[in-house]
Amino acid sequence: MSKFFSQKHSRLIPYTPGEQPKNMRYIKLNTNESPYPPSKKAIEEASRQAELLRLYPDPECSALREDIAAYYGVEKENVVLSNGSDEILNFAFIAYGDKEHPFVFPDITYGFYSVFAEVNNIPYEEIPLEDDFTINFDRYTGINKNIVIANPNAPTGIFAPLSEIERVVSSNPENIVIVDEAYIDFGGETAIPLTKKYDNLIVVQTFSKSRSMAGARLGFCVASKELCRDLNTIRYSINPYNINRMTLAAGSGAIKDKEYFERNRQEIIKTREKTAEALLEMGFTLLPSKTNFLFAKSECISGEELYKKLRENGILVRHFTGERICEYNRITIGTPDEMETFVNTVKNILKD
Amino acid sequence: MSKFFSQKHSRLIPYTPGEQPKNMRYIKLNTNESPYPPSKKAIEEASRQAELLRLYPDPECSALREDIAAYYGVEKENVVLSNGSDEILNFAFIAYGDKEHPFVFPDITYGFYSVFAEVNNIPYEEIPLEDDFTINFDRYTGINKNIVIANPNAPTGIFAPLSEIERVVSSNPENIVIVDEAYIDFGGETAIPLTKKYDNLIVVQTFSKSRSMAGARLGFCVASKELCRDLNTIRYSINPYNINRMTLAAGSGAIKDKEYFERNRQEIIKTREKTAEALLEMGFTLLPSKTNFLFAKSECISGEELYKKLRENGILVRHFTGERICEYNRITIGTPDEMETFVNTVKNILKD
Repeated sequence: MSKFFSQKHSRLIPYTPGEQPKNMRYIKLNTNESPYPPSKKAIEEASRQAELLRLYPDPECSALREDIAAYYGVEKENVVLSNGSDEILNFAFIAYGDKEHPFVFPDITYGFYSVFAEVNNIPYEEIPLEDDFTINFDRYTGINKNIVIANPNAPTGIFAPLSEIERVVSSNPENIVIVDEAYIDFGGETAIPLTKKYDNLIVVQTFSKSRSMAGARLGFCVASKELCRDLNTIRYSINPYNINRMTLAAGSGAIKDKEYFERNRQEIIKTREKTAEALLEMGFTLLPSKTNFLFAKSECISGEELYKKLRENGILVRHFTGERICEYNRITIGTPDEMETFVNTVKNILKD
Repeated sequence: MSKFFSQKHSRLIPYTPGEQPKNMRYIKLNTNESPYPPSKKAIEEASRQAELLRLYPDPECSALREDIAAYYGVEKENVVLSNGSDEILNFAFIAYGDKEHPFVFPDITYGFYSVFAEVNNIPYEEIPLEDDFTINFDRYTGINKNIVIANPNAPTGIFAPLSEIERVVSSNPENIVIVDEAYIDFGGETAIPLTKKYDNLIVVQTFSKSRSMAGARLGFCVASKELCRDLNTIRYSINPYNINRMTLAAGSGAIKDKEYFERNRQEIIKTREKTAEALLEMGFTLLPSKTNFLFAKSECISGEELYKKLRENGILVRHFTGERICEYNRITIGTPDEMETFVNTVKNILKD
């Protein structure tokens, strides 16, 4: 830190993104990207906009908001777009968090929530997951604090039924509940319909995973019109032109191509189940995943060693160092071929 | 505001971007976009990346940072990229502003500085421009506060010599000075070389104007390595993947195409001078512009009326309502043809 850096950030530890190697030598199963390219419609629409880059994008993002609203059966005014879902999460922390309104989330979850709280000087509290890595929703019921829950949770992959989400939302009517559904399309059930019933619910999603657009940076939330107005107040106070023309167009192309989206997510679910079976056969412990990744550990090899040996063999997975999860690795689901290579490589490593 | 919105934002008034009509019926001289498309290299590079959107972008943005560093004769570690220059400005307010370290800027300047201060709860002070709309640099010398100066200033278009900038930077060694050079390529002289001499200077630029990429959202700063580390700490605490793959690639394509860049900016300067001459002949008062816009008023018609009549005639310019500038309009320089239409339309309006 320079001597000029504000003292208010003295405790700030930034988020560490997964490794992004600049060459393509690795089978990349470490950052939950889709193994499939985006819809051709998305690619075409984005390329067309490249010619028009001299003009600012529509700051209201009307066209894509309408497309997303139509897809989820809500209105355009119920949708706010962001430069990746991290941005809308940060906007929500800024809009609703302060000394009197702390945020609460599980101790094991997306690592960015605590960073958003720190960088915005908002107090926060982490509630430990149960021993089986599930969320104990009793501990979020009627607590009168802002809440963020990733559903399915990461890196565990575990999905909680909507009835539990609704219990949290309905029992904290004076506080905001954010449900981060980055991985919802791989077997979970979205809470978006609940936004019609509850004025304190924000559902966040992303085009990064199930729509193969991590490189385009597109996230969004669905919430009541009033909450969306709050979030737009923050957006227009920070970065009104937050989404570029090409990404807006790619988003419209992607969300209209339902057939391609369905085929890809079903394929990923199928590959996940097949990979899980193979790992179980090798004696791995797996958490039940409704995401595009598996969270797995073995009694025969430490989490760190498996990570390192896979890396030596050209396969990247994500290893975390937190006390309760350091024996696990998070393994993104790639193509069937990639996962076959992965399974065979693990077999060879365990044999050694 | 919803009842959930944090009280700390009760005074927050978001920035109002210029009108972005969704149809192309207007001659658009209101948001300082370039009238020329981006470099073909930029378009090609961006389109190529559309195929690869399933993968996250490089969070270090190494390739483009190297290209920008090479262009300006600095090192990669002296460059931080952002989702439009608004984002890097906000990061700097967050990094260096707090109750003990207010920000100071002119009363008439880019309207977003006060919004960044407000949304981050940082105190700020506005120093009035002189009667001729120049900045009185004596009032920024040795004041021991963080400072933001747009050079050339907006919406006045007036450029201040580097000697004045250096006086401000050198006399406030314990505080940050941000020089916002969004319009530097239309006749000004960049302060980037001064970043090698001063550890408290941040120079901000954008690809939106002179490189015809407003729709791609790409800004950057050049500063000492230590300040860049600070800004990256904030960036990695808010949005590490803040720039999408297509924009990164377009930026590299654009900055390498020096010939196209030179031709366009010279063309815009030439058209500006010709338009200025025509307005002066019609009795307009103009401020001396080193930007891609003119700031002009006439004794014969109010600023608001001229704005409205131009709009009725299919031409958008930007009108501000601030007390000292409401008789002026800010007119972006378009193509020679567009400016001829503009001049003829003004002539007809004044005749009526």
